Order: sequence, then C-alpha cells, then structure tokens
Amino acid sequence: MRTLNARWLRPLLMSALGLTLGLTVRADEGMWLFNAPPRDPLQHKYGFEVTDAWLEHLQKASVRFNSGGSGSFVSEDGLVMSNHHVGADALQKFGDKDHNYLRDGFYARTLAEEKRCHDLELNVLMSIEDVTDRVNAAVPAALSPEEAFRARRKVMADIEKESLDRTGLRSDVVTLYQGGQYHLYRFKRYTDVRLVFAPEQQAAFFGGDPDNFEYPRFDLDICFFRAYEDGKPASVAHHLKWSRAGAAENELIFVSGHPGRTSRLLTVAEIEYLRDRQVPETLRWLHRREVLLGAWGGRSAENARIVRDDLFGAQNSRKAREGGLAGLLDPAFLESKKAAEARLRAAVAADTRLAEIATAWHRIAAAQSVAATNALRARLLEGGQGFTCESFAIARELLRAADERPKPDGERLREYREAGRESFELELFSTKPVYAEYEQLQLADALTWMAGLLGYEDPIVQRTLAGKSPRQRAAELIAGTRVRDVAVRKQLYEGGKAAVDAAKDPMIELARAIDTDARAVRRVLETQGEIIRQAHAQIAKARFAIEGTGTYPDATFTLRLAYGVVKGLEDGGRQIPFQTTLAGLYERSAEHGGAPPFDLPPRWIKARSKLDLKTPFNFVSTADIIGGNSGSPVVNRAGELVGIIFDGNIQSLVLDYYFTETQARAVSVHSAAILEALRKVYPAKALADELTGRRRR
Amino acid sequence: MRTLNARWLRPLLMSALGLTLGLTVRADEGMWLFNAPPRDPLQHKYGFEVTDAWLEHLQKASVRFNSGGSGSFVSEDGLVMSNHHVGADALQKFGDKDHNYLRDGFYARTLAEEKRCHDLELNVLMSIEDVTDRVNAAVPAALSPEEAFRARRKVMADIEKESLDRTGLRSDVVTLYQGGQYHLYRFKRYTDVRLVFAPEQQAAFFGGDPDNFEYPRFDLDICFFRAYEDGKPASVAHHLKWSRAGAAENELIFVSGHPGRTSRLLTVAEIEYLRDRQVPETLRWLHRREVLLGAWGGRSAENARIVRDDLFGAQNSRKAREGGLAGLLDPAFLESKKAAEARLRAAVAADTRLAEIATAWHRIAAAQSVAATNALRARLLEGGQGFTCESFAIARELLRAADERPKPDGERLREYREAGRESFELELFSTKPVYAEYEQLQLADALTWMAGLLGYEDPIVQRTLAGKSPRQRAAELIAGTRVRDVAVRKQLYEGGKAAVDAAKDPMIELARAIDTDARAVRRVLETQGEIIRQAHAQIAKARFAIEGTGTYPDATFTLRLAYGVVKGLEDGGRQIPFQTTLAGLYERSAEHGGAPPFDLPPRWIKARSKLDLKTPFNFVSTADIIGGNSGSPVVNRAGELVGIIFDGNIQSLVLDYYFTETQARAVSVHSAAILEALRKVYPAKALADELTGRRRR
Repeated sequence: MRTLNARWLRPLLMSALGLTLGLTVRADEGMWLFNAPPRDPLQHKYGFEVTDAWLEHLQKASVRFNSGGSGSFVSEDGLVMSNHHVGADALQKFGDKDHNYLRDGFYARTLAEEKRCHDLELNVLMSIEDVTDRVNAAVPAALSPEEAFRARRKVMADIEKESLDRTGLRSDVVTLYQGGQYHLYRFKRYTDVRLVFAPEQQAAFFGGDPDNFEYPRFDLDICFFRAYEDGKPASVAHHLKWSRAGAAENELIFVSGHPGRTSRLLTVAEIEYLRDRQVPETLRWLHRREVLLGAWGGRSAENARIVRDDLFGAQNSRKAREGGLAGLLDPAFLESKKAAEARLRAAVAADTRLAEIATAWHRIAAAQSVAATNALRARLLEGGQGFTCESFAIARELLRAADERPKPDGERLREYREAGRESFELELFSTKPVYAEYEQLQLADALTWMAGLLGYEDPIVQRTLAGKSPRQRAAELIAGTRVRDVAVRKQLYEGGKAAVDAAKDPMIELARAIDTDARAVRRVLETQGEIIRQAHAQIAKARFAIEGTGTYPDATFTLRLAYGVVKGLEDGGRQIPFQTTLAGLYERSAEHGGAPPFDLPPRWIKARSKLDLKTPFNFVSTADIIGGNSGSPVVNRAGELVGIIFDGNIQSLVLDYYFTETQARAVSVHSAAILEALRKVYPAKALADELTGRRRR
Repeated sequence: MRTLNARWLRPLLMSALGLTLGLTVRADEGMWLFNAPPRDPLQHKYGFEVTDAWLEHLQKASVRFNSGGSGSFVSEDGLVMSNHHVGADALQKFGDKDHNYLRDGFYARTLAEEKRCHDLELNVLMSIEDVTDRVNAAVPAALSPEEAFRARRKVMADIEKESLDRTGLRSDVVTLYQGGQYHLYRFKRYTDVRLVFAPEQQAAFFGGDPDNFEYPRFDLDICFFRAYEDGKPASVAHHLKWSRAGAAENELIFVSGHPGRTSRLLTVAEIEYLRDRQVPETLRWLHRREVLLGAWGGRSAENARIVRDDLFGAQNSRKAREGGLAGLLDPAFLESKKAAEARLRAAVAADTRLAEIATAWHRIAAAQSVAATNALRARLLEGGQGFTCESFAIARELLRAADERPKPDGERLREYREAGRESFELELFSTKPVYAEYEQLQLADALTWMAGLLGYEDPIVQRTLAGKSPRQRAAELIAGTRVRDVAVRKQLYEGGKAAVDAAKDPMIELARAIDTDARAVRRVLETQGEIIRQAHAQIAKARFAIEGTGTYPDATFTLRLAYGVVKGLEDGGRQIPFQTTLAGLYERSAEHGGAPPFDLPPRWIKARSKLDLKTPFNFVSTADIIGGNSGSPVVNRAGELVGIIFDGNIQSLVLDYYFTETQARAVSVHSAAILEALRKVYPAKALADELTGRRRR
C-alpha cells in the first residue's frame, strides 16, 4: 500500500487484488532508495532518465548530520549547507554567557576563523549492498523469537565489523520494509566539522513557532559548515553546482535527504496503537516539556539562551505529532487503510504459495499488544523519559559500556557494537557544555513525571527517589555526580568495569539500580519486535509477489530520493502562490507591527533598500518529505542546487502515515535568496563567491 | 490534624492521642470561619481581642467575586477593590478588536464613564446559620448511599428555598469539614457591577509567568469596581478605611477572603489518590491547554488578546498544581500524615463510644477507589474536558435546564435548584463575546484529547465524532450551533423542553447524545461522594471529641479569616526582606534589560522622577491563604486596610495540603503604593481621594 487519499484508492485496491502489477505509484510519491530509484515514473511522467552518473553524483554530494538532519556539499572545498535549525544544536553548544551564536549568528571571514564543532559527525553514503539473504540465513525459522533476535543482532554486527575492517568506512546494516530487506550502508565519516556561517535565528526562523509548518513563509533557514580532513578543508569529489536561476514554477525537482521515520507500511493494528496510545502519550510528554522549558527559559536571558534549541525542538515535535495525529484521526484514512489491508489479506488467502503469511497480521497485533503493556516502562526506564538529563545518559553509557565491551561483539547491546565505537566515543567525549541548573530542572521534572505515571509507591520510583522528594533527589544527584567532567568520563571509560564500580558515582549508581529493570523491559520489546519484523518480512514478500517491487520502504533516516514539481496550493478557496519574495518578509513583519516572533533583525531592516525585493525567498513543491529531510538539497534535472528544504506545511504532517499531494507541500529556501542575503545583508561575500565557484584555498 | 511540618508534629500527635485538648494550633495557621473565629490564639499569642463588632464590620466589608476571587468595599459609595487578575475576566469580556482593556487598562473619570460588566456577580455574606442537625435528620442512617445523597440534596434545596423566600437573600448550604457540618450562608447579591479602574496588565503582572508565585515582587495587581443598586452607586454600611501608613514589619495583620479549596483533612488514601492520579492527570491537561493557547495566541495580536486571560489562568493553575504536587511528593509530609492518621485511628479504636467510626477510613478508601475508576470519564463527560468550549457548556445548560426545571426543586441536579436560579440565569444570558474560531480551536483539541484517552473506537468517542475527524466535527458543530446568540438562548430557555427539542441545534444534540452517559458517571461519583461524606462526618466527630473543636474546616470558597505577621523569609541562606519598594521595580526591569515580561509600561517610565521611590510596593506575611484569596483585603488591628493579597510564594503552594510558615508567605500590594500610583502614575486622583474618604456622589 502506498497512498491512501481517495484519488489513489482505486488503483491501489486493484493492485492489492493483483489486478495491476508494476507501477502503482502515480502521484509524486515516494522516499526512494538510491539503489532502487523511481526510474519508471520519472521516465513516464516527466520523460526524465535517471542515469547512474547523475544518481551517484547526487548521492555523494548528499550529507547526513548525525545530530539529525540533512545537507549537501556545495563547494569542492568541503563546504556543507544545511538548515539553521539543523545547525542549531552545534550553535547552541558553542555559546556561553557572553556569546549567543544561536540567536546572533556567526560568520568566519577566513578559514582560520571557522569554529570546530564539539561533537558533530557528518556521513556521506559511499555504497549500498543488499545483505538480506545473509541476514535471514543466519536466523533459521526454528529459533524462538528471543534466539532469533540475538542471532539477527549477531549477524548484523558481524557484517558491519567485517565491512569496517575491510573498507575503513562506517558500516551500518539497515532494516528496510519493516524487516523485508537488510542493506549494508557504508559511509565516509567527517568528524572535524567547522562552523562557517549562520544567520541570526530570527532571520532563519522568522515567524517562530506560530509560523512553523505554515506557508507562505519568509525564512533564511540556512547554515554552512566545512568538513575538514587532516586539519585542512576536505577535497570532495562531488558537490552540487549552484543554480543562479533557482527553482521555477512547475519545474521538476529532486530532493536528496534523510527522512527520519514514516509509518506507511504498518498494519491497521499498529496504526490504531499509534493513534490511541503512542502519539497521544508522546504528546503529553511533549506538552509538559514545552511548558517546563518555556517557563524556565522565561526567568532570565541566560536561561533562555541555554534552553532555546531544546525548546524549539519540543515545539517542533509537538506540532508535527499533532498534525500526524490529525491524519490518524481522519476516518477517511483509516477506512482506506482497512480496506486495502483486507484486500491484501484476501489476495494472500487466495494464493496457496503464501499460506504461512496469512497469520502475519494476527501475529503483529498480538506482539503489538504485549509491547503496549510494556511501553510505558520502556519509555521511562529505557527511553529516558524518567531520567531526562545529560548526566544520566552519560552515566548509563559508562555503566553499560563497562558491562558490554568485554562481551563478544555480536552479543552486545547494539549501540555498543564494535563497528559503531568511533561514533559512540565521539559523542561520549563531547566537550559540549552541560549546565547543572538545567540538568537539575529536567531531572526533577522527569522524576515527578515518572512518579505520576507509575505511582509513588512503585518499587522503581521508590528505589529511584531513595526516600527523597523528586526535587531533593535531583539536586543531590546533579550536585554529586562527576560525569559532566570529560576527563572523569575518559578515565572511567578507559578503566572499564573496575573503575566504574569503584567510582561510586551517585548517578552511575542510580543507572545501576534500575538497570536490571531497564534491560528486562528492553528485552521484551526486542523480542516482540522480532516477531513483528518476521511477520512484516512475510507481508513484504506477499506485497512484492502481488504488487511487484516498484515501491519504496518506510523512512529510516537513510538516504532517499524524492521528486515533485514546484507548485502552489489551494487552501480554503484561496490560491497560495508557489513562491514568496523578499518583499513579503517586510510586509509580513509590518502586518504584525514588528512584534516578536515577527520582528526583523537589525541587519535586515538596514539592508532593505539595497535588496532586490523581487528575489524569490521561499517556495513549495510536491516532493515527498518528512522530518529528517531538513537541510536536504533541492536540485533540478541538471543536478544543480535550486533550493534547500527546511519545512513542510501543516497539511504535509500526515505524510508520516500516507502520501497526499492535494495540499501537502515541502517548503524550501530559494537558491537566489541565499546569494542575495549573503551578498547584501551579511558581510559574507566570500562565502557567496565560494558557492558560485570560487576556490577558498 | 492541622499541620504537618516537623515542628508541629509533636503537639499534633499528643493531641491525636488525647493527651492535649483545646488549642493545638500554635503557628499563624488557619482559614477560620467567621462564626468560629480564632479568638483564643489571637488572645494568647497577640493579646488581640476579636470583638463581634470588629468581626461583623470585616465580614460585611468583604466581597466575593463569583468569577473566582475576593475583594472588599473601600468606600461608602460601593467602591470595591480586588486584584487585576480577578478583574481580568471582566476586562477580557469588555474588549474587542480595537480595545484591549485587559492589556491597556481602564479608568472612568466620572461615574457616567464606569462600564457595566457582562455577567459579574458580587456576594456579601450577611449571616451564617448552622443547619447540620436539620440536614442530618433528613438523612436517616438506614438509607442506601444513593437514597442518602438524594435526601441530602433535597433538604439542602429546601433549606435554601425557604431562606430565599423569607429573606430575599442568596442562600447556600455549604458543606464543611468534608461533611462534618452544614452551614447556611446568606448573601446580598450585587449584579450591576461596573468597572472603575484597572492598570495596564504589565503593571499588574510585571514579571509575568516567570515571576508568578515568586518573591520579591513588584506588582500593582489591583482593580476597582463599583456595586450599583437601582442604577445608582450602592450605599454600603461597611467599608474598610484606608490606612495611610500601611503594613509595617512584624505587625499583626488579618486577611478576610475566600480561599477556594484545601485538602488538609483528607485521609491518607485520599491524599495518595491526589498524588498519584488526580494532580498528575490534571497537570497533563493543563500542560496541553497552556501549549494550545500559547501557540494560537502567538499567531496574531487579536488571538493574543482573546486568549490572554485564559492563558494566564492555565499558567497560574499549572504552577500552583506543580507546587502542590511537590509537597505531596515530599516523603516528610506523607510520613507525618500517616503517623497522625494512625494515632487518630488508634484513639478511635480505644474509645468504645466511637466504635462505628473505626471503619470510616476503610469506607473512604473503598469509595475513593470506585470513584477513581470513573474519574476519567467524569472529567471528560461531566467536567467538560472532552468538550471544552463555551458553546458546549451553554448547549448543555439549555438541554438540562429544560429537563430539570419541571422537576420538584429538591430532585433537580443541584445547579438547577430554585435558590440558585438568578445567579444561573445571570451567567447563562451573559452578553460576553464568544469567538467562533477560538471555540473551534478548543473543541477540536478537546475531542482529540478525549479520543487519545478513551481510544478512537470508544462508543462515546464514535458517537461524538459522528464519522468525522475531531477538526471536521468541531468546525461543523461550531459553525452550526446558534447558542452563541443570546436571543436564541433566551428563547430556548424560556420555551423549555419543547423549544429545546424542536431547535435541532447540533451542539444541543451532541450534549443530548452523551447526556445519559454523563449523568450516569455523575451519579456514581455522587453516590461515592455520599459514602465519603458520611465517613468524614464521623471522623470529624471523632476529631472534635478527641482534639476539641478549636479548629477550622478545609477551604470551600466561603468567607474565612486568616491572620499572621508581616515578615520576610530566609531562602537558600539569603534573608529576603518583608517588603519591596517602587525603586525595586525599576531595578528589576533594568536587570532584565527591559525585555518582556520585565518591561515597564510607558506611563511608569514617564512617572519615575515624580514618584517617591522609597514607597513600599509589595510585602509578605505569614497569613494562611490559598487560591481564591486573591483580592482579599489585609487589615490591621483597627480593621484598616493596609494591603491587598495577590499571590503566595512558591513555598506557599503546599498550603493546599498542610500549613507551614517556615518559608510560605502571602504576597500583598501595600496600601501606600496604591495611593502613590493612582496619584502620580495614573490620572486617577479622584479615585485616590475616594479611597481616603472623599464622597463621589
């Protein structure tokens, strides 16, 4: 099943009945794998031929931000463009009481001024290898779900380790089609990443939370970094050429990026669980977090600075989930989903070769239901909602690393596998600032939240609070732990179990006190996850057999290719044009009397008369994107950069669950606005020159 | 049990064991009934004799705001002073697109300019009569809880109706000591209430949510109304004389006001329920509401105006509950509570006269547990959390009034009793503005919230949504209903059941569709409430027998007398003085660079040089207050007004559950600052003159 809006229901149902095979995706739908690109629809609908060279160039010019987001190389000297809100995490970590780079922006006039990030890792996808057969061969059907989970974990770790040893590249086995396929992704890692340019947050995020996920928009949501190797700007073989003209109306465009997670292939039972439990419960936590951070941030300018990125993150997640939930609560969606599932099940039932698959949906529902009864504890204990703070996260990593590292690679918890060690250590030893008062605020709140959900008398709550109130306990833990000191972390990590045990660090001891429970609930979810994965693998097999393989898996924060056309939308009877201009920014601010969050940064007020106000600023397209695509390059047929994705509109938030192009739009910054702003608003001419082809070294 | 901080545990325990009788309250504790004032502690500790005349004067100069809050007469011409945040509801209702009185303030230079409020009712307590014996006599022990509830409801309605007919005064039977006593309160009602003066909200609420419940403070949180009778300013027999000197350090002061609700006499089981369920669940709703209103308010200046009072209300409740929950989660509190209850139960067990009481705690816990399983549905269906909007509330009132009015008075749902009719109709026919877009926002959110809690397939959710998504359904209901038209409301209300049925109004039909379920869950809670009330009546009897009657009941939004001394506090080793000055306001704003919410209104910036900056601004005292006390007059021994309560500090939020005076403080505006501001910041000299004795007519 691909899409569920009414227009596409008919071909979809026919497809599920086996009446049509092959191309079932007619809209500009899909987050396609680079090793299974949408050649046919592009050829048929747009007469565009996807060549291997075109694809390889776009793939290797695309960059993944491990902090969550996408980007691209935009010069041969390793210059990377992403969104301001993707760079926000790095900008936040640079700041201190006297420097608020996140709010005020940054520009390195020379290479020497570029600022090295604390813990940013960039990945570039170098190759994809289908390892489905090897993974499945290692997991014989006779195994129990627990054994199967362990066997699968082991073979994945083995494949990754072998690949790392052989190629030196970061090697991740990724699960696609909910378990239908396994691919080995090999990445080149960049860990010396330096900040080059960021505008003021008010320019990047003009309109703030109220305008977030809205359109029309007027945001310069960009940020530039540079990848370094051996202390010098990286020489990259693939970078995107800048299009001076930029995106034009009705033009075919492509988006190459890393959509985080969609749920389009889930069964009805899984969707119902999301709708009735997971999303509402997550929203309760997000609402609480947004209020907590907002209230604390309001108490002083320094609090506001510390909390800024986390607060925007909470607001952004909240709005995205609310939009997704609205889609889940639309009866038209679920009715279509149910009908499609019923038809696929009927087709399976009618095909004797697929007999063992018939129970797959039931197995998923049963496993889902076991997982559901453990979900709350899992979120609190293993997901960290009960202990939200950096200090706890670090303490647990030290505790578990000491326990896990001595085990054989394939038997460790997955995040401690050998192939992931370098990335793990980069984060663990991050020199980013951690603020004790903010830690205490969050931990006290998390402990209160946990007590309110499990009940104060729950043994885990009692063990955690140790006879104190949440506030007292948080204060004592944050004051007592030494894990915020990087040198202490290194010493404990390198000293292994003996050192960690001897430290008697109160936060590590807390992590230890709940570790048996946390691991137990994790094991339950892993086992149920294995059952679900096996069942989904069978459903995928049925779908491939009945519908053909010309489709794409749900998003998994792996590189995907989307496409669409630059196109406005109709909303409430009003036609909203495909693009805005710089003039619109000034008009929108004036409409609100310049009151926050519609105030203009002083530089923009000053630069107004110099700007060509007709320059396109933001534009929308029908490309199929979702959270994680932020910062994705938008390119034309020639592979030239015409814009950068930074948002989807409200109507696009249902794309988590189904594709629609009636009103859903991806929102981008236009390439022309970027040059205009760098040249006339900011003193960043050298950067603009580099984008248009001038060498920096 | 009175107090649970460690210092008072010893006498309390002795008391519970029957070792001491009589005066067990040593701290400045208590929200005392005016017919059972704390004569002894005031005499013993402060040598102050409470005379009947002193008491009557204070009682009859005290005013209850039915919108929630307290106030007092401050001139013989019916001038009433309360807080800006108590008046905010009325100020909000006056506003429109072009007038934002809540934000900008208001001043009527002449009587003719005073603005009549849409639906504000003021009550003045004229007499109290103990009707416990009559209420209990009407409820024989042989009745089942359901019958007992109905019999009690009937006798209360009878008493009220008789009193209303005889005296013409609003007559309410109030339940005290959780059912230990019933008193008949008779009030003079004022329904022609006009706005006289309000400062800018930024002067009243300087520091906003970050400084709310904090101290030191710098807020001019005042608002003046005038009660009218027969179209003329009311001539009132009792009003408070203004003290020019105002409150001084270590002075004994009194607070006369309407604390809303405390839970100090609850059993351990009831407290545990509050801690583990009710308060956390309420907080989840408040967090959601705060985020919803904040995000919508951010979208335009007009949205911000519409939502302002509701948003501050949500923030205020959230902060208050969080503070209360922190108290509930303090193990010291619950241990003391458990110990005290164990000792009272032991004393009961040891006294054969009290044998039937021994099971009271168990009966409460059992009833509590039944109530708990119905609490969610009750909140959603009967408490309105599933349908939050004015239109639904009005539609339900029309539906139920039509069903209830024809019944005998004593058999109606309590809010439709004859004695409450005038107040009910004042609210129902309020001409306040109701905004369709805001209604739709809230209703769509409430429907989503309900679906997330009950599950989408729940029959009530299905019946409510009627095959639509929450957003579609809310849009259709709000667009379709006519109940926002006051003329339609009047016509339907007067037309009774035939008219209401014939209207086929979609919102009324929705209220009807869930009414059987809503009434059913309400009946369960009422029945369990009756069991709890009877058990608490027995516990109260035991407590009176063992500890004596020199105590006070939990707050119930009835008039109470509190007292204490004007006194600073120590916090984190720092001594915080008892008062702030006007100079401090300017300093605090400067500390924050004048950024919101620490910005100063233009009038205050301009007036600075004219002001005596040494004038006391806000001050703190140990008086025992809680939400609902906002606007309460603070008077000295002579009964002169020295200040007005507007807040408690963070440490006072535990006063819901137990009294402490270590750090808990009531926060007031000083009488001197009010005069200084009215004379020098505002052009309100005539008002200041009236406060100091000059007649206005």
